[in-house]
Amino acid sequence: MKKKLLVLFFVFSVIELSAQFPDSLTRVEGDTIWFDARSLTIEGKGWVDTDSTFDRLPLKAKEIIPERVWRLSKNSAGITVSFSTNSKNIFVKWKNNNNTYALPNMPAISVSGIDLYYRASDNSWKYAGTGRPSPTFSSIAVFSAADEYPDKTDYLLYLPLYNGIAKMEIGILKGNEITPANVFDNNLKPIVFYGTSITQGGSASRPGLVHTALIQRQLNAKIVNLGFSGSGKMEIEMAQLISEIDASVYVLDCLWNMTDDLVKERTEHFIRFLRERKPDTPILLVEDSKYNYSSPSERGKILIGIFDKLQKEQMKEIYFLGAQNLLGKDWEGTIDGVHPNDLGFMRHTEEFLRIIKEILKIN
Amino acid sequence: MKKKLLVLFFVFSVIELSAQFPDSLTRVEGDTIWFDARSLTIEGKGWVDTDSTFDRLPLKAKEIIPERVWRLSKNSAGITVSFSTNSKNIFVKWKNNNNTYALPNMPAISVSGIDLYYRASDNSWKYAGTGRPSPTFSSIAVFSAADEYPDKTDYLLYLPLYNGIAKMEIGILKGNEITPANVFDNNLKPIVFYGTSITQGGSASRPGLVHTALIQRQLNAKIVNLGFSGSGKMEIEMAQLISEIDASVYVLDCLWNMTDDLVKERTEHFIRFLRERKPDTPILLVEDSKYNYSSPSERGKILIGIFDKLQKEQMKEIYFLGAQNLLGKDWEGTIDGVHPNDLGFMRHTEEFLRIIKEILKIN
Repeated sequence: MKKKLLVLFFVFSVIELSAQFPDSLTRVEGDTIWFDARSLTIEGKGWVDTDSTFDRLPLKAKEIIPERVWRLSKNSAGITVSFSTNSKNIFVKWKNNNNTYALPNMPAISVSGIDLYYRASDNSWKYAGTGRPSPTFSSIAVFSAADEYPDKTDYLLYLPLYNGIAKMEIGILKGNEITPANVFDNNLKPIVFYGTSITQGGSASRPGLVHTALIQRQLNAKIVNLGFSGSGKMEIEMAQLISEIDASVYVLDCLWNMTDDLVKERTEHFIRFLRERKPDTPILLVEDSKYNYSSPSERGKILIGIFDKLQKEQMKEIYFLGAQNLLGKDWEGTIDGVHPNDLGFMRHTEEFLRIIKEILKIN
Repeated sequence: MKKKLLVLFFVFSVIELSAQFPDSLTRVEGDTIWFDARSLTIEGKGWVDTDSTFDRLPLKAKEIIPERVWRLSKNSAGITVSFSTNSKNIFVKWKNNNNTYALPNMPAISVSGIDLYYRASDNSWKYAGTGRPSPTFSSIAVFSAADEYPDKTDYLLYLPLYNGIAKMEIGILKGNEITPANVFDNNLKPIVFYGTSITQGGSASRPGLVHTALIQRQLNAKIVNLGFSGSGKMEIEMAQLISEIDASVYVLDCLWNMTDDLVKERTEHFIRFLRERKPDTPILLVEDSKYNYSSPSERGKILIGIFDKLQKEQMKEIYFLGAQNLLGKDWEGTIDGVHPNDLGFMRHTEEFLRIIKEILKIN
């Protein structure tokens, strides 16, 4: 069965869209039936008991973590909505929850926009299209499947990386079906990434191109993205929180946000805490990536020292990913010397996939 | 000689910067000596007689081409400033000429920012850093070379892709030297790219990552970027204009901006006009790239038909680059289904380099 998706996308702003959202989960408007995204499958969350559906940390975190981390936890990085439908058109309406439309080093599509993928006949995920946000904070994207693509198929929608979702509706054409879909491998526990702006997705060009999303589609794995721009600083409260997630791997990638002293002070303590709570779960330490693949930074050396020490103690299931290949060798893998561009994230993906597959003993 | 460049960059807005620009080409301010960029080497222009130094079309074009093309010709895509200096700090101040700070599918750095490269000891160009623009339209970037990098070295500065430069100054530390530098291979005539938003650089993450810039650094070649976002439509007046440039290759890559009828109506006429004026200069026709590497579009088929016809007539030095590999095979090479992201531009570069080297008979 040859499947082919033609994609058209139009964006127009719908001022005061929020006023049009009813409380019910379904509503009909002309030829379109709208479903509140909350009635479909939401993944990428480590906790159910969040303040808002599309938040990344539980409500209880609010009192124990730095205010800035809490604020960033309302960015929907890594959260996905999945569903199955036979509709030839798919509409997405969303309202962002803050007014950071774009960043100097990230386009609006990536900060506040959405990215749709579908499952192709060979079971791989294929790009279906991008939804551009509107600066007035209410946007609509229309994705159109071609005539030769009539079957009920799985879709995977990535939410904004540096903004959040106040409200989201998925629309299909009348006479068609939409159902929630658990699209990831249920035998694989989520991979939890804890890190910085890089983990959160700066500077992927769209939400589906951060390395965590690329890895997700390659492995068909659940991923929890806990990247907090500028604020991935290994507070022990964060170790407490992530230890609550029953993970297949914990990836700790915080160096860029930490001073040498903070790395000395917190990292070993953080790892030991996690190891105590989760004796068998692999922990992967990641060195800070450098666009010019130069020798380890001071904080990198400290991290390597900690890793060596824990290895000597024979702590089990502790791994290390060096930075030398994370951004490639041509110095072109970042937008600004720090944040990976799409080239850099693709190279991150290759390196992370290699070691994660090794850790999980999968091909 | 091992060279290593540490890069730091700070951005702050300087309100009403323009008022501070004197008419003279040099001025001293504290420890910094500022040079008007016009006193250094400006490349990437097909004409000297432009309205403003950083424009891409000659003043006479204003009356004969569509108004939108004229307006876009004031975007500095592909224009470079080069110089040689031994200063450990390099400062760049610039004022953009319009208020398009960013685009939904392009970050501010790419639309209005700058990108600095230096020549490494192996003669290759290396990324040195990025200058973020300020939304108030006057920006400053500071690039710092490390202690171990004291020699006088060539620098190459790429200007904004979707904005222009009203004024630019390069600053060095007192006691150091800066001189204009002709950094490209002078035995190779410029490669002229005429095209659409893609040629202009949508959606590279920064000015140095559009394929024309990547090709430039690989070949050490002069490039003239005549990409006009949405308006690369092969008016015969554009053929007249580009025939005035003594080029090594003309690359014609306009399909995305043209309807099937326009391709039929204009392309053959455009090519024949160019061939008549420049009997020996290679002309490279490029098919429209497709993120899903699907079969030719209708306009692609028309272009292929024209190419076949000209080949049968044995028109000399006419070449064709098909789209099948321009964006890779994984459907991830665009930001929005149309415009290449950094991954897509790197793949464009490989394809273009292959055929351009073949045409120019270089390794």
